Order: sequence, then C-alpha cells, then structure tokens
Amino acid sequence: MFAERYDIIVVGGGHAGAEAAAAAANMGSKTLLVTMNLQTIGQMSCNPAMGGIAKGQIVREIDALGGYSGIITDKSAIQFKMLNKSKGPAMWSPRAQSDRMRFAEEWRLALENTPNCDFYQEMVSGLLVEGGKVVGVRTSLGLKIKSRAVVLTNGTFLNGLIHIGEKQFGGGRAGERAATGITEQLMDFGFEAGRMKTGTPPRVDGRSLDYSVMIPQPGDKNPDKFSYLDTPFLTQQRDCHMSHTSTQVHDLLREGFERSPMFNGRIKSVGPRYCPSIEDKIHRFADKESHQLFVEPEGWNTVEVYVNGFSTSLPEDVQFKALKTVKGFEKVKFFRAGYAIEYDYFPPTQLKHTLETKLVDNLYFAGQINGTTGYEEAASQGLMAGINAHLKLNDRESLILKRDEAYIGVLIDDLITKGTEEPYRMFTSRAEYRTLLRQDNADLRLTPKGYEVGLASEERLRKMEDKERKSQAFVNFFKHTSVLPKDINPILDRLDSSLVKQSDKMFKVFSRPKVKMEHMLELEPVSNFVDGNAMNREVLEQTEIQVKYAGYIAKEKMNADKLQRLEDVKIPENFDYSKLKSLSFEAREKLQDVQPVTIAQAGRVSGVNPSDISVLLVYLGR
Amino acid sequence: MFAERYDIIVVGGGHAGAEAAAAAANMGSKTLLVTMNLQTIGQMSCNPAMGGIAKGQIVREIDALGGYSGIITDKSAIQFKMLNKSKGPAMWSPRAQSDRMRFAEEWRLALENTPNCDFYQEMVSGLLVEGGKVVGVRTSLGLKIKSRAVVLTNGTFLNGLIHIGEKQFGGGRAGERAATGITEQLMDFGFEAGRMKTGTPPRVDGRSLDYSVMIPQPGDKNPDKFSYLDTPFLTQQRDCHMSHTSTQVHDLLREGFERSPMFNGRIKSVGPRYCPSIEDKIHRFADKESHQLFVEPEGWNTVEVYVNGFSTSLPEDVQFKALKTVKGFEKVKFFRAGYAIEYDYFPPTQLKHTLETKLVDNLYFAGQINGTTGYEEAASQGLMAGINAHLKLNDRESLILKRDEAYIGVLIDDLITKGTEEPYRMFTSRAEYRTLLRQDNADLRLTPKGYEVGLASEERLRKMEDKERKSQAFVNFFKHTSVLPKDINPILDRLDSSLVKQSDKMFKVFSRPKVKMEHMLELEPVSNFVDGNAMNREVLEQTEIQVKYAGYIAKEKMNADKLQRLEDVKIPENFDYSKLKSLSFEAREKLQDVQPVTIAQAGRVSGVNPSDISVLLVYLGR
Repeated sequence: MFAERYDIIVVGGGHAGAEAAAAAANMGSKTLLVTMNLQTIGQMSCNPAMGGIAKGQIVREIDALGGYSGIITDKSAIQFKMLNKSKGPAMWSPRAQSDRMRFAEEWRLALENTPNCDFYQEMVSGLLVEGGKVVGVRTSLGLKIKSRAVVLTNGTFLNGLIHIGEKQFGGGRAGERAATGITEQLMDFGFEAGRMKTGTPPRVDGRSLDYSVMIPQPGDKNPDKFSYLDTPFLTQQRDCHMSHTSTQVHDLLREGFERSPMFNGRIKSVGPRYCPSIEDKIHRFADKESHQLFVEPEGWNTVEVYVNGFSTSLPEDVQFKALKTVKGFEKVKFFRAGYAIEYDYFPPTQLKHTLETKLVDNLYFAGQINGTTGYEEAASQGLMAGINAHLKLNDRESLILKRDEAYIGVLIDDLITKGTEEPYRMFTSRAEYRTLLRQDNADLRLTPKGYEVGLASEERLRKMEDKERKSQAFVNFFKHTSVLPKDINPILDRLDSSLVKQSDKMFKVFSRPKVKMEHMLELEPVSNFVDGNAMNREVLEQTEIQVKYAGYIAKEKMNADKLQRLEDVKIPENFDYSKLKSLSFEAREKLQDVQPVTIAQAGRVSGVNPSDISVLLVYLGR
Repeated sequence: MFAERYDIIVVGGGHAGAEAAAAAANMGSKTLLVTMNLQTIGQMSCNPAMGGIAKGQIVREIDALGGYSGIITDKSAIQFKMLNKSKGPAMWSPRAQSDRMRFAEEWRLALENTPNCDFYQEMVSGLLVEGGKVVGVRTSLGLKIKSRAVVLTNGTFLNGLIHIGEKQFGGGRAGERAATGITEQLMDFGFEAGRMKTGTPPRVDGRSLDYSVMIPQPGDKNPDKFSYLDTPFLTQQRDCHMSHTSTQVHDLLREGFERSPMFNGRIKSVGPRYCPSIEDKIHRFADKESHQLFVEPEGWNTVEVYVNGFSTSLPEDVQFKALKTVKGFEKVKFFRAGYAIEYDYFPPTQLKHTLETKLVDNLYFAGQINGTTGYEEAASQGLMAGINAHLKLNDRESLILKRDEAYIGVLIDDLITKGTEEPYRMFTSRAEYRTLLRQDNADLRLTPKGYEVGLASEERLRKMEDKERKSQAFVNFFKHTSVLPKDINPILDRLDSSLVKQSDKMFKVFSRPKVKMEHMLELEPVSNFVDGNAMNREVLEQTEIQVKYAGYIAKEKMNADKLQRLEDVKIPENFDYSKLKSLSFEAREKLQDVQPVTIAQAGRVSGVNPSDISVLLVYLGR
C-alpha cells in the first residue's frame, strides 16, 4: 500500500511528533506522520499556553533552529507576556496564551505545507525490527509501513488510563482511545518501561464566572513574540484572571480524599512535582491557606476557560463543590471535569544524546515517552529527534547541543545522563550557564547550527547575521565613543545617578544599572547611529544586554570553556567500568548503565563523585 | 453537581444535537448539551458538503424556521451550486461545499453564543426514568443530571462497530470511542432496536492527485447562499473535480471481495441504498463499466480531499490498489482509509409526529438513531425535536409540519408512519407537493410558524414579510399592466417567440417559457417599478416563479387542500383496530402498530388499502 519505503516515520501528532515530522521533512527526508486521529494534530491537551520560565527560552531555541512551535504560537496567540522582565535578561521568559483551535489548525496547515511530509491515520501497534534495526511500523489493522527510521512520540497514549474519583477507563485523552501494543513489544526487546501520571483541571463556562472579583492578568503593553521570523505582533489581546483557593475550598476538597485515586492507592505512578494537582498541594502544604488559580481563556471567541492550578482527579462532584466556593466561581458551570491519566514511559537513560535508543538502531523517542512533561520539552525533543534521524540516515554528524549552548542541550543531557523518575520539567536552575542561554540570543546561538544541518532557512540566517552584525557594531560604537559631562550629566542627574567629572566612554556610563537604552538614545550621536544603521527593536535590546551584562557573560563563558575541556575528553564506546576497581561500587554500576560519552557527562551521573572522575582521568591517560 | 434541573438535555453534538440544543435554548429552555468530546461538536463525519437535491430544500427550511445549519454553511462554504437550475424551480436544489474545520468551529461558537445553552463533556450511558417519564440522564462516571425532557441524537455511536476488511473494532467514528448502555436500557423499557450500516470513503492527499486529467466542477458564477438572513455571499470558491472508475478498478476491487465484511457475512445490517459503497455498486450493477467519483476539497487551505463515490469497507490495501488505477489518482497517497460502521437505531414507528417516543414521555429521538442518513435529515429532526420538547414543557401546541408545508414534514411523517428498514434519505420524489415545497419559498412557508413558536427572530419575519409583500405587489403589477406590441415584439422576435398582435397583460407574455425576468426588465415600466420598490434578487426570483409557475402551483395547492380534508379527520388516541373486523388483517395489524393520528396518515401506512380507509371513514361517521 505504501509502495515506497519512507525515510522516517513519526508516530504521534502532538508537539513532539509535529516538530519531528516538520524537521525531518524540511531537511529532505521522505517523512510519514502516523496518528490515531488526523483531526487532533497539534492539540494543546492541557493548558492553552506556550512558553513560561525556561520553557519560553526553549520555544525561542526551537524557532532559532528552524522548528515551527514559535511560528504557530505567534499565529495563534491571544496574549503575550515577557515574564521576569524586572530581573536580569537571563531570566526573561516569553509566554503566550493561544487560541486552542487556531493553534491546532495552524499546526495542521503548516505540516500540510511541508512538501516531504505525508500523513496517515491509524493506530501504530508495533515496530518492524530486523537485525537490531527498526525498519518500519505495524498498524493495528495489520498494515506494514516501511521506513529507515522511526520516531515514537506517543505522549500519554501508551496504555493510557484515565482516573476520575473511583472511576477508571482506558484512553489517551478524555474522549479518545488509548494506544496499545508498543510497550509490550519494546519490553520484549529488553527495554525497561515505567508508568507516569499527569493531570488536567476542569474546563468551565466563562459566562458563569464573575471576573469583576478576580484580578485581571493582562498581556504586555508592547507585546513581543516568539519567532525571529516576520510573524505578526499582537495588536489586541485577551486578559487572563487570577483568583485564589481558601481554607473552605481545601476543606471541601479533603472530603473527597478517600475517593481520590491519588490517596487510596489506585494511582501508583508519579506525577509532575512542579505541576501538582490541587489535592496534592493542600495535602503537602497543609498549612497554606490559599493557592493561586489562573483563569485562562481558551481562544479569541470561545467561552470555554481553563482553570490553571486546579488540576485534579477527585470525583467530579467534589471538584465542582470545591471550585464553587472560589471567589468568582460561585455560579461556575463545568464544561469538562478534571482528570488524571497514567501512561507508559521509557526511562531515558536508554537513549543516546541524539535521542536514538541504545537497544534498537534508528529508533528515536521524543516527548512524554521519555518521562518529560510540558509542550516545550516535548516539541524540542521532537525537533532534535527529527534532525538527528535525518542526519544519521545521510551519514552526517549528529547535532548534539551542549549544556552551554541551549536549554535543549541541558534537557537532553539531563534525561539521558540522570534519567528521571518523575515527569521532568525544565527550569532555569537546571542550566549551569543561564546567562548565556537567554531568550534574546537563541538565534545567535543556534541559527548557524540550524542552517548548517539544512533546517533553518537562508532568510533566517541572514536575519540573524544582520542582527549580530548590527548589535556588534553598536556595542563597538559604545566602546569607542566618548560622551562629555555636559551631555550626559543632565540625564544622570535625572536618574539620580552620580555625575561624571570628565569625558568617559559611553560603554562605561551605559553599564550603570539605572541607565537604559532609552536614555542613551537621548544623546544625539547615539540616535544618529541608530537611524543611520536601520536598527530595529531586537538589535537595540541585544546591544543593551551585551553592554550591561558584558561582565557576567564573559565570566560564564570562561567557566563554560573550562568545563568544556572535560567535555572534550571522550570515553570509548562500550567502556567496561567493571575492570576499574578503584571506582566506587555505585559509580561503577551507574556508569556501566549510563555509558557516558565524555568525562564531563560522567561527572553529571548521579552517584559519581569527583574522586571517581579523577580515577577515570588517570585511566584515560590525562 | 448540576444543582439545577435542566429543561432539556440534548445527548450528542452532531447536526441533530446541535440544532436541537440551539432551538431549545433559543426558545427559552434551560438546555444542556452533553457530548463525549466537546472538540468534535458540529463535525462533518462524512463528506464536506451540505444540501443537494431535496436536502438543500431542507437546509433552507431549517433556516426559515430559525435553525442554524444554513447560517453555519454560509459562513464555512468554499463553493456553492444551485443544482437542477435547468429544470423547473421545484427541482432547484442548493448545495455547498464547506471547510470542514471552519464548519465545526462555527457550530461550536454559535452554540456558545446561545445564552441558555450549557455544555458538558461525558458519555451518557443511560436515562433516568420515573413513572414512564424521562427525568434526566446518567453518565458513564455515574453522574446524574436532571431534566424535564431529553433529546437523544447519538448518531453512529451506539455500540458503533467499525469494519475495514476482516478487521473490526468498536468506535463511533474512526479514532473515537463508541457509546454504550443506552440501547440496552431502552430495550429493557420495551423499545425495539435494530442495526444499520453506513460507510465513508478514503481521504487522500490532494498534492498526490493529477487534477489536469479530471473534469473541474466549479461553483456557480453568481453563487447564491442558504440563509434568508444577511450571511455573506461567496466572493471566491474552490473547484471540485470529477473522475471515473474503470473495469480495471472494478476488477481490482473484486479481488478483495472475499475479505469484504459486506460479502463474507460479517456486516449483517443494511446500508444506505442511495449512497452505496463502491463494492456494492460494482456488485449490483455488474454490467456498468464506470462510476463517477467526485473529488471534494476539505477546506480552503487543507490539502486533504474527500473521494465522494468511493465509500468502501474493503481492506486498505485493496482500497489503495484500486484507487491508484483511477485517472488522476496514479500517485495517490492515503490520509485515512475508508470504512464501514454498524450502529444501533430504533425503528421510528415508535415515535409520535413530534419525535417524542410513544413509550417514554418527554424522550425525543433525532437523526441516525431514527434510521435516517444525511446531515440535513439529522439536523431537521434535531430542530423539530428541540422545538417540540420546548413546546410540550410549556404546555403549548406542538409544531407538526404537514406534507404540503415542508420536506421536513414529509420526512417525519414518512419515518413515523412507514418506518424504515434501511437508512432513510430524502428525495424530491418522496414529496407529493414538490411544486409547493421549493427552496425559494421556504421562508414564506415556514418563517411565520418559526416566529409563532418563538424561534425565528423578528428580523427574520420582517425580511420574509417584505419579500412576500414586494413579490405579491410585483405579480399584481404584471397582472394589471398591459404592454403594447411595439414594446414587447422586438424582445419576442429576438427570443424566437411568436409576436403579439394587440396589447396584452404583461403576466400573459411573461408566462411564455422563453421570456425571463431579464427580458421583462428591458421594459421601462417594469424596471421603473423594480427601482421604485427597492427589490432585491430574491424578490425578482420569487416573482418570476410565481408568474411562470402560477398554473402548476395553483393545481398542486388544490390537490393538497383536497387531501387536507382527510388530514383533518382525526382518529381517537389508542384506537382499537382489532374490533374492526372488516379491515384487512394486515391493515389491522399495521394500524394497531403505527396508531396513525389522522385518516390521511392511516392511508400512508404500508399495507393499508383504499378499501380499509373507506371502512375507517364509515366507522368514524364520515
């Protein structure tokens, strides 16, 4: 039926699958996206938002490499916010609310407009494997589709089991069927599998809420956007709203605890620590009298809203009774109850840095199947799996992002080195070099790499080079241009900053915390330079950051370079740690299991101590 | 949880459910729409088109009454065609291709904008019944939701079983779960249930087709639209294309017959006679060497296309191999395979004219659950069930459309009088008075009724009255204004129509077949009258039809009135036919079963002869 052999088959059409298919096809692989339901490609299964702290940086990185998540988000956004704007730029994190329907539609159309990408609707129930290499997939109807590589992005569908109160039923999402067969087959191949849990809050009727007693959460006055390409800026936005739970809400929720699958032992798997259910929050933080709830509209026109912070698997009547006592929710009407879902995942230490499995060649995993949580985490893994599958099929070097190059690098290195026993979510604190990994410079960091592998377009590279050239020139301008006291002191005076006594380099004055780009632009030579070089908002921002944080950035680069030396010390493949008796027993076991590729990675394996690293270095002749 | 008691609960969010919920809510009933998946409200499960012969008239009727199908179609249309324009106006049938995603989104938003309509996502697995009256529904999670009436519109979901080749699996649509529980409970209540079958063709990748060898099927040059309200006219359209099967295609399909659920006895239920599968067509019409296929785009931007005419449940590989040999399909790529689905229905003789069940008070059925096929048939039943449920709850007289008033009247009367053992589809031939039941006058026929029950808006009524007044005045103008030979003869000469010798009434000249409104408008008094009275396209069309078909219309009205006298002869409720020994045995049995309300309806019961009617008339004292 599929006469031809595909290069790459992507199983699943969520954030991971969609990015994987787009990347593989755009790089030139004949790609097939197989999904159980073509109507649900690009669904936002949980909250209608992309980005946030550390996650927003990931979306920018995906965009910089030539992925689609940023573009889709920009096209479907109903609100944009740069979080942490009051902190240093390393913490700035873009976040957008999306129109749920528009988001899915834009993804579907984007994939359709990707020339090498074909589609097929069916449940994949197994893999075709020959001689330790995957050669295609088998569908539940018995169809065999051949390919040279396969990317699995099954999300929560593998043996998905939905829980609401004491009820359980199979399903990949509410109203959809679970997928079966793959886990069992992979375990036969020797894969270790586990179960994880996640949950979602009720969706309610926005017409039944009293927003007047909640706190409006508007978007930014001058909203930015995700993509470095020319996607539209928002010209109007929709507000979110904030409300709070109370002890009364908590008491009502507690009444349902004995019927809760979380507490009566029915759910055994671990949920996302940093996105806990409301029952988990009031159980673990029993002394806290209130938790925040964010009321997020699901789109431009729909009245459906998402109650962020109220994820729950308590019985529907308990969900309802409790939510009704939240301020503004007195007359709430439910659209859909919240629920928890358990699903299969495969501990990601079974993967290489390319996201290819160690056990089966040319088989890649991306997204929740690797034990992560979050759209952004999933999308970035899909992108990297798609890129690396294509590169391997073409005998080209892998694209492995280092920890000082991208949050995506941190994410994948963490996963395959440390594994995860609970849904893994990205945080800025997971990155050693977060001053380098900013949302503003993802293009500078990654677009050359995306272009080199053949994914990021010429246009994208040119834009990035233009930005780099102009901001570099502008930084040099500040470094080499002096300003006279008579010109700068009125501004410093106004800003309550000490005056200068003699002419000084602009760079030095600009470095002062209170002095912003807007103030520098008051100086005629500066504004002339900007006008003469056609600089846009992005260049101004980039220059300001490079000037003001020059010290931090230089220091972190140095640290990164130092550690890089350990990254350069490669460990031979299939290294036998058992013969190194001077390693601690735990280190020997863990290293044997993880098989790190470099000394630096070995150092990040949990249970491996600096003394073990010294032993290794000696053995390797350093 | 649902503290309040709803007036009406509608189960299902397809064409029937959406219209039922909209009508009930708009009339003022507190309404709850319960569906298994809120993301799939208003799905076009089969082809992306509304209307067609007889069906287009139904959509116009729904619109005239104040339903939404016409408005939604206009908003999502990508092509419009008035079918049968070369025949008399009784045969004119509007048809539109829709953008599938847009159609569903518009339905969802329309319902959300209906103030009394609430939503809940869950599977309904049973009814709450007390003392022979429905009082709510029970969900699969055990939730009880109370109401005063329930409308069931379960489509193909009740114990839905999908067949592809030798494979079968439960599901309400491909990729969606089946619904269980309701059939079994209704059978316990004494309902008779049956199984029906329907099917759908493969969806394919439009990029893989060669349209240059197919025949383009463009929309109309001046596209009309469905709604009598001010919905937009199409300013651009997308083409459909026609291709044909061949003996080679048929031979390839035949190779799969032994694996076909249609032929190996696995599917036992009956499918839609006039929408047969391709295997059915080549089996039943073995001497036919070719069948038409219509290639319909699924939207403005998507590359997915629907292969109308190729509905099939043969194994996917057979579907594929055969379709590949169709002209233009040589390189076809499948998106989704075709499949057949079996589902439960309830023979509609168990219903009253209001679509309320005879066995359980305040329980209504609409759509495929009644054994019909087609979006339009389903939508109109939903509308009427919603209207009548509301009217009954408010102790108001039912709205029952007569056979000379609406296709909807014909549809419902056929269903409840004759029942159906195969999926029932509307045809113009089913209507005795099709000259009266035209697409152009659905507003004149039905908007006053829609307004009277409180559904059609004031605006709608005013528009209809304006049209009626103006076209009536215009007809009168033609009746009373004379034209001189010197003015009309140049036109008649040009049209090759015999010249007039003396002044004559315009009405008479206009009645000639060759003389159209455009020719009459060449006469100065006519164009002056039109300009002076601000007449639009619709008024001109209405006037032309009223003039040119005056004779036919008058004759059919007379016939209808004659038969109406029999409609006026009511038969007492629970009439005991067994005591009328002079009735034929068959008539006694069938009449006892159907319990017709009038003599006319009794006459339409299959197996009842004119002699039986005479017996009845005598007994009833006529």
